[in-house]
Amino acid sequence: MLNPADLLLYLCTDRVLSLGRPITEAVEEAVAGGVTMVQLREKAASTGEFYRIALEVQAITRRFHVPLVINDRLDIALAVGAEGLHIGQSDLPLSAARRLGGTTLFIGVSVSTVKEALDAQAAGADYLGVGAVYPTGSKADAGEAIGLEGLAGIRAAVGIPVVAIGGVNGANAAAVMGTGVAGIAVISGILSRPDIRAAARNLRMILDEAAARG
Amino acid sequence: MLNPADLLLYLCTDRVLSLGRPITEAVEEAVAGGVTMVQLREKAASTGEFYRIALEVQAITRRFHVPLVINDRLDIALAVGAEGLHIGQSDLPLSAARRLGGTTLFIGVSVSTVKEALDAQAAGADYLGVGAVYPTGSKADAGEAIGLEGLAGIRAAVGIPVVAIGGVNGANAAAVMGTGVAGIAVISGILSRPDIRAAARNLRMILDEAAARG
Repeated sequence: MLNPADLLLYLCTDRVLSLGRPITEAVEEAVAGGVTMVQLREKAASTGEFYRIALEVQAITRRFHVPLVINDRLDIALAVGAEGLHIGQSDLPLSAARRLGGTTLFIGVSVSTVKEALDAQAAGADYLGVGAVYPTGSKADAGEAIGLEGLAGIRAAVGIPVVAIGGVNGANAAAVMGTGVAGIAVISGILSRPDIRAAARNLRMILDEAAARG
Repeated sequence: MLNPADLLLYLCTDRVLSLGRPITEAVEEAVAGGVTMVQLREKAASTGEFYRIALEVQAITRRFHVPLVINDRLDIALAVGAEGLHIGQSDLPLSAARRLGGTTLFIGVSVSTVKEALDAQAAGADYLGVGAVYPTGSKADAGEAIGLEGLAGIRAAVGIPVVAIGGVNGANAAAVMGTGVAGIAVISGILSRPDIRAAARNLRMILDEAAARG
């Protein structure tokens, strides 16, 4: 079951963008700094390697009581018993993932249009990753930026929690939260910083202040 | 449930080795020629693409009453309702796949040593893919050839059906079957031939003769 509060500061991993630091070390620093949810993305790993890394990262997320979400791979999510699965538009159809995920696995879906958002909500998505809000180099397949207006439009069209992704950083996080999203998803804004823990802590403070203001 | 007789002529797909012909066309020609089981391998496809291709190939295998096996990806196997899953030494651990695969999905495992074979049998494998028997260019990760003696040694060490893979062709298929294996797995010996159906038919005839003698 998804607790929407866990979406506040959502780290998506990326081996390239973490500047060569081991993914376990990077995740531990990030959750110690205040990340509330971790999505493990391993686009180049073999299945066996992904499985082993997922178990290693899970040892950290469990210690910090932070949900672990597996990107794309339902088999890995089920095999390690992750809390969530995140799928994009070129992954398994949500209906198939939903059917196989049972009652405990929550599922998030990446969308960039109101239609995709409504389709995902209708098919049973637990939350939406919406973006790219701003232009970003982190995801080659992120498409054109939708801006704050695009984000607000999708947010208003659905009843499930929305996480903003794509170019969100300390300078714009408060404005992004102002659209009523449940949180922000960050890759390079945390992983590519020299001090991962400090970067996470700084973002978390901004988000907590934005949430306090309402 | 696996019917060991279905292992007789086992086609493993490969987009590169099928010489640019669509995978559906190649599979249809192969099963029309006498292939008794099809393993779909898609190492480069996105999950969504793999899922769609699997459904397309399944429409053919169902029409011909030939089991469909998905390589590596338990999520795809479960999502399309394939008959089998095949895993290698760098895929999901067999114990995890077995636990998630339920009672209907059969699982094969690639092995190249007696130890790997005994481990896979102990962990609940339904059949073993054993090789490479002969040197082959079809699989970059196939390792050194084990020869007929290596194949026979593994075959004798286990009680579950064995399929021979790696460089098996019309010239050596009878000798390979003489080791007591349930069948042969073929990639380029079928997919890289100008006439896929004729290549499958020729191999099938050799196997049927070997089985009748043996």
